[in-house]
Amino acid sequence: MSEKVSVALIGASGYTGSELARLLANHAGAELKIATATGERAGQKLSDLFPALRGVCDIVLQEPNLDEIADKCQVAVIALGHGKALEIAPLLLSRGVRVIDLGADFRLRDAEVYREWYHLEHSASELLSEVVYGLPEWNREQIKTAKLIANPGCYPTSAILALAPFIAKGAIKAHSIIVDSASGASGAGRASFGVGTHFPEYVGDFKAYNVGGHRHTPEIEQALNDVSPNPEDPEARALITFTAHLLPVARGILSTCYAAPMTTMTTEEAHQILTERYANEPFVRVLPLGDYPQIKHVNGSNFCDVGTKVDARTGRLIVISAEDNIIKGASGQALQNLNIMFGLPETMGLQSAAVFP
Amino acid sequence: MSEKVSVALIGASGYTGSELARLLANHAGAELKIATATGERAGQKLSDLFPALRGVCDIVLQEPNLDEIADKCQVAVIALGHGKALEIAPLLLSRGVRVIDLGADFRLRDAEVYREWYHLEHSASELLSEVVYGLPEWNREQIKTAKLIANPGCYPTSAILALAPFIAKGAIKAHSIIVDSASGASGAGRASFGVGTHFPEYVGDFKAYNVGGHRHTPEIEQALNDVSPNPEDPEARALITFTAHLLPVARGILSTCYAAPMTTMTTEEAHQILTERYANEPFVRVLPLGDYPQIKHVNGSNFCDVGTKVDARTGRLIVISAEDNIIKGASGQALQNLNIMFGLPETMGLQSAAVFP
Amino acid sequence: MSEKVSVALIGASGYTGSELARLLANHAGAELKIATATGERAGQKLSDLFPALRGVCDIVLQEPNLDEIADKCQVAVIALGHGKALEIAPLLLSRGVRVIDLGADFRLRDAEVYREWYHLEHSASELLSEVVYGLPEWNREQIKTAKLIANPGCYPTSAILALAPFIAKGAIKAHSIIVDSASGASGAGRASFGVGTHFPEYVGDFKAYNVGGHRHTPEIEQALNDVSPNPEDPEARALITFTAHLLPVARGILSTCYAAPMTTMTTEEAHQILTERYANEPFVRVLPLGDYPQIKHVNGSNFCDVGTKVDARTGRLIVISAEDNIIKGASGQALQNLNIMFGLPETMGLQSAAVFP
Amino acid sequence: MSEKVSVALIGASGYTGSELARLLANHAGAELKIATATGERAGQKLSDLFPALRGVCDIVLQEPNLDEIADKCQVAVIALGHGKALEIAPLLLSRGVRVIDLGADFRLRDAEVYREWYHLEHSASELLSEVVYGLPEWNREQIKTAKLIANPGCYPTSAILALAPFIAKGAIKAHSIIVDSASGASGAGRASFGVGTHFPEYVGDFKAYNVGGHRHTPEIEQALNDVSPNPEDPEARALITFTAHLLPVARGILSTCYAAPMTTMTTEEAHQILTERYANEPFVRVLPLGDYPQIKHVNGSNFCDVGTKVDARTGRLIVISAEDNIIKGASGQALQNLNIMFGLPETMGLQSAAVFP
Repeated sequence: MSEKVSVALIGASGYTGSELARLLANHAGAELKIATATGERAGQKLSDLFPALRGVCDIVLQEPNLDEIADKCQVAVIALGHGKALEIAPLLLSRGVRVIDLGADFRLRDAEVYREWYHLEHSASELLSEVVYGLPEWNREQIKTAKLIANPGCYPTSAILALAPFIAKGAIKAHSIIVDSASGASGAGRASFGVGTHFPEYVGDFKAYNVGGHRHTPEIEQALNDVSPNPEDPEARALITFTAHLLPVARGILSTCYAAPMTTMTTEEAHQILTERYANEPFVRVLPLGDYPQIKHVNGSNFCDVGTKVDARTGRLIVISAEDNIIKGASGQALQNLNIMFGLPETMGLQSAAVFP
Repeated sequence: MSEKVSVALIGASGYTGSELARLLANHAGAELKIATATGERAGQKLSDLFPALRGVCDIVLQEPNLDEIADKCQVAVIALGHGKALEIAPLLLSRGVRVIDLGADFRLRDAEVYREWYHLEHSASELLSEVVYGLPEWNREQIKTAKLIANPGCYPTSAILALAPFIAKGAIKAHSIIVDSASGASGAGRASFGVGTHFPEYVGDFKAYNVGGHRHTPEIEQALNDVSPNPEDPEARALITFTAHLLPVARGILSTCYAAPMTTMTTEEAHQILTERYANEPFVRVLPLGDYPQIKHVNGSNFCDVGTKVDARTGRLIVISAEDNIIKGASGQALQNLNIMFGLPETMGLQSAAVFP
Repeated sequence: MSEKVSVALIGASGYTGSELARLLANHAGAELKIATATGERAGQKLSDLFPALRGVCDIVLQEPNLDEIADKCQVAVIALGHGKALEIAPLLLSRGVRVIDLGADFRLRDAEVYREWYHLEHSASELLSEVVYGLPEWNREQIKTAKLIANPGCYPTSAILALAPFIAKGAIKAHSIIVDSASGASGAGRASFGVGTHFPEYVGDFKAYNVGGHRHTPEIEQALNDVSPNPEDPEARALITFTAHLLPVARGILSTCYAAPMTTMTTEEAHQILTERYANEPFVRVLPLGDYPQIKHVNGSNFCDVGTKVDARTGRLIVISAEDNIIKGASGQALQNLNIMFGLPETMGLQSAAVFP
Repeated sequence: MSEKVSVALIGASGYTGSELARLLANHAGAELKIATATGERAGQKLSDLFPALRGVCDIVLQEPNLDEIADKCQVAVIALGHGKALEIAPLLLSRGVRVIDLGADFRLRDAEVYREWYHLEHSASELLSEVVYGLPEWNREQIKTAKLIANPGCYPTSAILALAPFIAKGAIKAHSIIVDSASGASGAGRASFGVGTHFPEYVGDFKAYNVGGHRHTPEIEQALNDVSPNPEDPEARALITFTAHLLPVARGILSTCYAAPMTTMTTEEAHQILTERYANEPFVRVLPLGDYPQIKHVNGSNFCDVGTKVDARTGRLIVISAEDNIIKGASGQALQNLNIMFGLPETMGLQSAAVFP
C-alpha cells in the first residue's frame, strides 16, 4: 500500500481539532503527523486534554513550526479562531502545503463583507480568488485540485445542503428565505465556556442568540448565489433571515428552512428536487416523504439528513436538515475534502453511522 | 375570610391536572374539592400517581360524578384529551357549574374548522357562541363573567402573545407570518409515552413534527384575526405557517415568530409596540432591547417573556416568546382565568418565579 | 398583622442567594430588606443577574454595610464562600443581628478539624461554642434561640437525615458507614463555571470527584456523633467513607448510604426506625416500604425523601435519601431555620411541592 | 484476503442488536449475513427501525430460520430477553453454529441460582459446563475455542474489571464488597419504554432500583469467585451488596466499588495492582493516579476506564470503573469475543475512541 497522506493539525486543543484527530486515528489513508498548540499545552499529549483519546491518539502537541510542517506534511488543517488563518495560510501555501481552514477567514470571497461581519481587515485577500469553498456536494471538482479550502461553517452546511437544490433550479424566491436553526453547545467551542454554558444554567434551556446578526448569514447567501442560474439578476440574489438557537444537547444542528416557491409546488415536487440532486451523494440522505430529520440520527456521523414538506395552506416550502456540527459541519467535512484532494475514496474513515441511542 | 372557591378537577392523572393540583394546594382563595380519574386510578391518591405531591395534595381520585360536582363545586377544570369535554361541558354548565376546558374542544369557534383539524363532529356546537377564549391579556373582561372558558393551547399562547400586539396595530402583513416553535416533552402529556419519548432516544435529539399540519395552527390564526383592526378584509386575515419541534427538556416553549411589517419598522418601534401593550400585564414581561427570552427563565412560573428585533437587512420582524407550557401554557393560565372569574386577585397563587437554575 | 421579619442577604449573586430571594419574595412573614454584592454587581438589580426574578425580586444589590444591616435587619443570611463568614459573622453578632451562615465556617465545632479540611485558621473560634447546627429535625429547640446558625451542607443534610435515626438508636456500627452521593451541577455554585461544567462536556457524563477527601466528610461524622447514645466510646464514633459524584442534572442530591447493623435487622425494622423518628416532621417524607427516593420528586421543594431496605443476603442496611441541594440542602433549610428562630410557622413559604415533571 | 466470518444476529430490533449491526457494518473481518426479528418487524429493513443506520446497514430482517442460519453463518449472536436463548442456543450448537449469547441465560453456571434470580427453570443446563464467560481480560484462552459464550452483563463487566485484580491477589475481603453503580437509560432496552423512561419524568432524575435484589449480583459474585486464589474457603467467597441507579444519560455505566483490604493498603499499591494486571489489555485503561473515570470518556467506545484510591481515614479501597453499557457492556464485548473466537485481531472494528464531547 502506498504511503499515507501526512497531515498537520494546527490548533488541536478545541473540539474540531480533537475530532479530526479521532477520525484520523483509524483512517486507512491519512495520518496525523503534527498537532500543534501553544503555551502550556505544547508538550502535553492531546489525550491529556481529551482523555477520551487515551490509547487512541496520544500525539504530543507542539508549538507550530511551519518549516517542519512543510517538511513533513502534505496538508495542514487549521482549526483556530477566525483571524489566525489569515496569517498562517499564506505561509503554508508558500511552502507548498495544501491548506484546509476550518475557520471563517476564507469563506467569504469579498474582503469587504468579511470586514463588515468579522470586524477584521482581510490581510490575505490576494488568496480569495483561488479559495475553494469546501462543500463537496457542490464543489467536488474544484476541491480535487484546490490548494486552499475554506471549510464551510456548521450552520451554512446545513442550510445550503437544504436550500441549494431549489435555488439551483430557480424554484424559490431568493428574498423569501428564512433559516431557523438550532445547534448543540459544542458549536461554541471548548474555549467558550462561561456562565452561559455552565451546565446548571444551560440544561433545560433554549434560546435564540445573535438575533438578526449571525456571521453565518452572508456565507449562506454567498453559497446560494453561487448556484443561482441567474446570478446577475439582483432579484435573484439570496437575502435571508437567519436565526440561530442554542439547544441543550452536546452536538447537532437542525435547520428548518422556509421559502416561497416561484410557482405552486407540491411536496412531491419538492422531494423530487432533493432526491434527484443528491441521488449519488454518499453523505446526504434524503428521507422518505413524511419523514423528517433528527439530529440523533446523524450525531457522531458525517451524514446530513434532509426532508421536505410544502405547507399546502400557505404554499410555503419547508426544508429541514440535520447534521453533526463537529463532523459534517466541521472536521468530518474537512476529512471528506482531504480525501477528495488526495484521490482517496471520499468516504474513507467517515463511514460510521451515528452512535444511537 | 370568605370561603374559598371550590374547584373540581376532571382528569387529574395527567401533567396539566397534577400541575393544577400543585398550584391549588397553596392557593389562598380556591380549593380542590374533587379530583377525578377513571378505571384503576379511581380510589388512588393523586400522590400515588405523582409522588412529588406526597404530603402536599393527597386527595383521593374518584370516578367523575357530575351531580356531586355540581353539589360541591363552583367551577370545574377539565383536563382531558380532546373530544371528552364535548360531552361533559354541557352537562356541567346545565348544572350551573362554570367550566374551564384545558383541551381543544371549545377553542375553535367554527365547528367545521374543528372537524377538519380534529376529525371529530363538534357535538356541542350550540355552546360555541358563548365560549370565551381564556387569554386574559386579550379577553379579560369577558373572562370575568364567562361560563365556559376555552383555555388556550400551549403553542398558541406563546405565539399569540408575541404577535397579537402587531396585528392589533395593523403593523404586520397577516399572510407573512411564520411561527417556529419548540416545546419540551411534557407537552405531549403523560399518557403519550412510547419509543418516541423513551429517554435514550429522546435525549440529545431535536426534531420537527406534524410539519405543515399542527392542530394549533387554526387556533393561532383565529386569535390573531380576533384582534385584527379590519377583520373583514380577506387580505388582513392571518394565514400562518407553524412548525413545532420537540426539545430535549421537560418543560418550556420558545416561539420564534417572523413577519413582514406593513411599512419599514425599526427594532425600537417593534419594542415599543410590545411594551405599550403589555405595560400593565402581570405575567407578560417584555424584555429590554437586546435581550431575548429563555425558557429557563420562565419554567415553573406563569410568566411569558417576550423580546423582539427587526432584521435590518431583510426588514423582517422577529418576535420571540418563552413560557412554561404546563403553567402559562395550560394550568397556570387556567388558574389565572379562575382568579378573574371569581373576583380574586389575578396573580393569586401564581407569583412564584421560575425555579432557577 | 405584625411586621415582617427583616432579612439581609449577604452575597446575593450565587445560586443559594438567588434562591433565598426567590423564596422570600412570596413569604408572608419575612422580607428581604438588603441584598449585597461587591464590585460591579453592586448597583445592579438582582434580576439583572437572574432574569428569572424579573418582576418578582428586583432589589438593587449594594455593597455590604454592616451598620446599615444592623439598623434595618433582624437577621442576616450569609451566602458566601467559606472563610468570609469568619470575618463578617462576629461583626453582625456584635451589632445584635442574628446570623444564618450558609457556608462551612461554623459547621465544624473543632477549629483544628476546620483547619485540616479547609486549610484556613479559624479566626472566630470563640463563637464555636454557641453555634447551633441548623438541622431542624435534630436541633429544633436550640435553633429557636440561636444567635448564630451554621446551616448544614447539602450532602450532609441528605446523609444525616438518612443515618441519624439509626445512630441515635445505636442500631448501626459507626465505623461501617459508606455514603455514596450524587449531586446536580448547581452544587458547585454559579461562580464555579469552567471547562468541567461546560455543557458539552458535562452533559451525558457522570463521575466521582474529591474521592476520599470531600470536605463534607467530617461534618457528617460530627452530626452523627452528636446523636450517638454513647459518644464517649471511641468504637461508637462515626468514621465514614463518603464519595461524591456529579450528576448531569441542574439540581438534586441522592445519597445511597450503607451500614452494618449492630444485630440482624429486617427491612421492616429499619423502616420503622425512620417512620417513628420522622412521623411529625413536615419536610421529611419516609416513603412506603418498597419505594425509594427520586430527586425529581423533591426538586424545587424543601422536602427530603427517605427510603430503606436491608440487603437480606449480606445483612447490610441501605438508606437512600433525596433532596433539592439548593432548597433543603441550603436556602430552604435556612428559611426553615429563620421561621423557627422568629416564631413563624416552620413551613411558611416552603410549602410548594416539586415542580414535576 | 480470506473470506469474512459470517454472522447471524438473532434479535436485531433492540439496542444491543442494532449496535452490533453498526459495529459490523465497518468491520474488516466479519459480516452480518442474517438479522432476525419477529412479527411485523420481519420484512422491514433494520434501518427502518433505526434510521441512524440508513445507508450503513439496510439489511432486511427475517423470521429466524435456524437451518438457514446454520447454512450461511459460522456464529450467531443472540440478542434476546432472558429465557429465549435457553431454547435457541442448543439448536444452533447442534447445527454447528457457535453462539454468543448477550442475555443472561448462560452466565450463571448453577442452574439453581439461575432459577432463584430469574424465576425460570434452566432447560439447557447440560450446556452450563461448557459455557465460557466471555470476559476476554480474564478468560481469553477459553474464548478462543468456545462454542458457547455467555457475554457478561453490563454492570458485571464494570464491577468485575474493577475488582477482580484485587480478588485474584487475595488483597481484599470478599465479604466487604459494595458495588454502587449508575447506568444510562439504554440499559433497560428499547422495548422497556414506559412512564418510567418517559423523557419528561426521567430527565433531571436520579434513583436507585431493584435495591438489594438486582439480578446481576450473583453474576458478579461468581466471576469474582472464579479468580479467587482460595475458592474453597467460604470466608473467601464473594458476598456483595450491589445497588444500581438510573442516570439521566443515554449510555454509560459508572461503578464505584468499595472493599476492605486484607491488610493496610496504600493508593499506590492499589494502583499498581491494576496497572500490572491490565498492562497489556487493549480495552482496559488504568488511569493515572488521581484521575477517575468518566462515562463521557468511554461512551461510544469499547474501553473500560479504571481508577482507584484508598480512603486513608477508613482504610477502605475505592475502585471506580466506567464503560459504555452497550459496547464494552454488551455488543462491543461480543464483537471482541467474536474476534478472539475466529482468530481475528482482537481490536478489529472496535478501535474508535469515544465521540467527545
